[in-house]
Amino acid sequence: MKAVIINFKAYGEGSGERALALAKAVKEISEKVDFYMAIAPNFLDIPEIVKSVDIDVFAQHADAVSYGSHTGRITPEMLKEKGVKGSLINHSERRLRLADIDYLVSKFKELGLTSVVCTNNVSTTRAAAALSPDYVAIEPPELIGSGIPVSKAEPEVVENSVKAAKGINPEVKVLCGAGIATYEDVVAAIDLGADGVLLASGVVKASDQKRALEELVGLR
Amino acid sequence: MKAVIINFKAYGEGSGERALALAKAVKEISEKVDFYMAIAPNFLDIPEIVKSVDIDVFAQHADAVSYGSHTGRITPEMLKEKGVKGSLINHSERRLRLADIDYLVSKFKELGLTSVVCTNNVSTTRAAAALSPDYVAIEPPELIGSGIPVSKAEPEVVENSVKAAKGINPEVKVLCGAGIATYEDVVAAIDLGADGVLLASGVVKASDQKRALEELVGLR
Amino acid sequence: MKAVIINFKAYGEGSGERALALAKAVKEISEKVDFYMAIAPNFLDIPEIVKSVDIDVFAQHADAVSYGSHTGRITPEMLKEKGVKGSLINHSERRLRLADIDYLVSKFKELGLTSVVCTNNVSTTRAAAALSPDYVAIEPPELIGSGIPVSKAEPEVVENSVKAAKGINPEVKVLCGAGIATYEDVVAAIDLGADGVLLASGVVKASDQKRALEELVGLR
Amino acid sequence: MKAVIINFKAYGEGSGERALALAKAVKEISEKVDFYMAIAPNFLDIPEIVKSVDIDVFAQHADAVSYGSHTGRITPEMLKEKGVKGSLINHSERRLRLADIDYLVSKFKELGLTSVVCTNNVSTTRAAAALSPDYVAIEPPELIGSGIPVSKAEPEVVENSVKAAKGINPEVKVLCGAGIATYEDVVAAIDLGADGVLLASGVVKASDQKRALEELVGLR
Repeated sequence: MKAVIINFKAYGEGSGERALALAKAVKEISEKVDFYMAIAPNFLDIPEIVKSVDIDVFAQHADAVSYGSHTGRITPEMLKEKGVKGSLINHSERRLRLADIDYLVSKFKELGLTSVVCTNNVSTTRAAAALSPDYVAIEPPELIGSGIPVSKAEPEVVENSVKAAKGINPEVKVLCGAGIATYEDVVAAIDLGADGVLLASGVVKASDQKRALEELVGLR
Repeated sequence: MKAVIINFKAYGEGSGERALALAKAVKEISEKVDFYMAIAPNFLDIPEIVKSVDIDVFAQHADAVSYGSHTGRITPEMLKEKGVKGSLINHSERRLRLADIDYLVSKFKELGLTSVVCTNNVSTTRAAAALSPDYVAIEPPELIGSGIPVSKAEPEVVENSVKAAKGINPEVKVLCGAGIATYEDVVAAIDLGADGVLLASGVVKASDQKRALEELVGLR
Repeated sequence: MKAVIINFKAYGEGSGERALALAKAVKEISEKVDFYMAIAPNFLDIPEIVKSVDIDVFAQHADAVSYGSHTGRITPEMLKEKGVKGSLINHSERRLRLADIDYLVSKFKELGLTSVVCTNNVSTTRAAAALSPDYVAIEPPELIGSGIPVSKAEPEVVENSVKAAKGINPEVKVLCGAGIATYEDVVAAIDLGADGVLLASGVVKASDQKRALEELVGLR
Repeated sequence: MKAVIINFKAYGEGSGERALALAKAVKEISEKVDFYMAIAPNFLDIPEIVKSVDIDVFAQHADAVSYGSHTGRITPEMLKEKGVKGSLINHSERRLRLADIDYLVSKFKELGLTSVVCTNNVSTTRAAAALSPDYVAIEPPELIGSGIPVSKAEPEVVENSVKAAKGINPEVKVLCGAGIATYEDVVAAIDLGADGVLLASGVVKASDQKRALEELVGLR
């Protein structure tokens, strides 16, 4: 089943009460389509959503440390304990050092959490795949929030990323992100070999979030 | 009223269910003493504690950005929206750039949040006080988690920090942290001019957290 | 004597052979004007310029560590040993944590190096002044490289920065940077109370660097 | 030919005049052995060594930017212009983000510079190899400066790193670092499949640097 993961980012439109409402909308839509759908709200919104909405919840980030004398950090163990499904790792707005990406992917495996490592081009996709995460999500930074889908602007980036990742490890699933704004973009990404998409502004910043998401998954 | 703020850090003993239990214990004790008591749990534990325990809850960190296209960040506005009282800023385990500390102190003022800027010596205390936060918390890094209180190891650091901060801005309150493990340490800090203490391992890592806290605030 | 410090940045026009040529031009001009003139080339260009041009050479950055097991770092001691005069610290393109700024200012004092702490607004200027560096250089980030001088766009920022810094410590000299492109801008900054200016693109990116600098110091 | 690269770090014993003397000693020894020998002094020492000693000189770090409005940064182009051979990238004391490692490896290729990407375990070695640098240097952080060679403490880490790297890209050469203190350690690393070693404290901190290096390369 192809995946659709929605990053709520730090958008006001995806925080607090609006995060909860959006989570419920995603859940509702997920029941009508043949996609695996999941969401990534901010840390403060995670606990209530996990409790009240039956949908897979990802964190947007995790820190590469374990329980201990750290301040202002969220560890993989804390995510696990809260019932979180996994996390984005190394998003272009929260880049991590190679050793920390490796730590997180490996710790997630140990804890049964799902890792989604974000990358910016074909060669970082290859490197990320070499760490054997569950997903690699390729997002050319210049297209993030642009409304121009990578599948249209640089289809060869998607195709080559898929090839590169699967060439290293066929088990790794590849998501395609950045600029995806229509169902056609989603279909194009999948046609190029992607196992799904990573969405954000196209849904969260839409004037009608639910309608935008319905369109994105082909319900309209 | 002198302040006692307890940083739960990323300690397993201060996370999840144990965070909630500890929050309740602090609340209970706070009613029996003449201290202003507050707690700083991790982001994921904040929402439930705010909802179910009537105590001031601080974050351990905030990111120097506003709502927008940021991933894995917690903004001051999100903290405000969740009913958080304020945040530690620039803890020695989460050091920030000067411009970001300034952004946060200023944004907190605008939002009515309480800022607690952590510092490591007399001169950074002076610099932090120049930003006019609500509190400066002086914690010599070498004493953090040591069990050796700064009020004993380096009483002149506390005294000079208080003088430095008040000399810059008499409104700024000064907390004393690092290594405080007994009621005598708390009293010593206050005698040296501190407006309170910032605690962590002395409470959270204690075999009996409640008992440890009772001792720390002079109830035993 | 008012100061004119020129940051060569990582501009191609201020690197390698061109750095040496520019250094010589600055030296030549400095002999005709009543300004204290100094330059800040990149690390790799520093040694030859120090050896062959009789002008004060600053680094653009120093790392907050001493001799030891660090890789890719330049320590204050290394700068001293190479005959460097001092360094920019916390430039907006190389922001540092508060504790590291403090370490560097204090270590520079010990070594007899000159510290120039860059700041972005009035309150960070006050905080930086509280550390008692030799200079604070105020550069509103939005004006850097803009060609719009802070002395014109936000004269009150310059005036209030000078007041704030001198209010904390009258010994601290205040430079004014960002967008200074003409002699009038330099004069305006000085009229607003600045002890000098920090230049960069206005000189280094000029089609005729020498001519641009001559104009900037009032020789044309 | 097996490689021996010596990281001078920020050791006082490998800075300034002592860096030059050590560079000359390495050059002298390199003529008597069948190793490819190169050195990595700090930025400030690089120019004079490149000019006066006929040996390949590496930087310890490069910043992932090009010529432009950056302060305190050393770009790959600057290294090239100074006659530097290449650089260590992502040393455990100067960790980089994945996207920046990728930028540097790719830019180095374009400029004809040699890239040596440092890693900390088998999986990061695999990821680094996926970027196709010239060298990957595996250094388990806990062994750095320990005097305990990785080839002895964790021979399987060396063997598996070599396998992992060559499995991804047989062209990538693998160096072995951390704790190497004797000729036996060097031989052991090579026997485990390494294409050479990355040395530091074993040479630079030795009471007699030249003698230590002679021993390390089997001349004594």
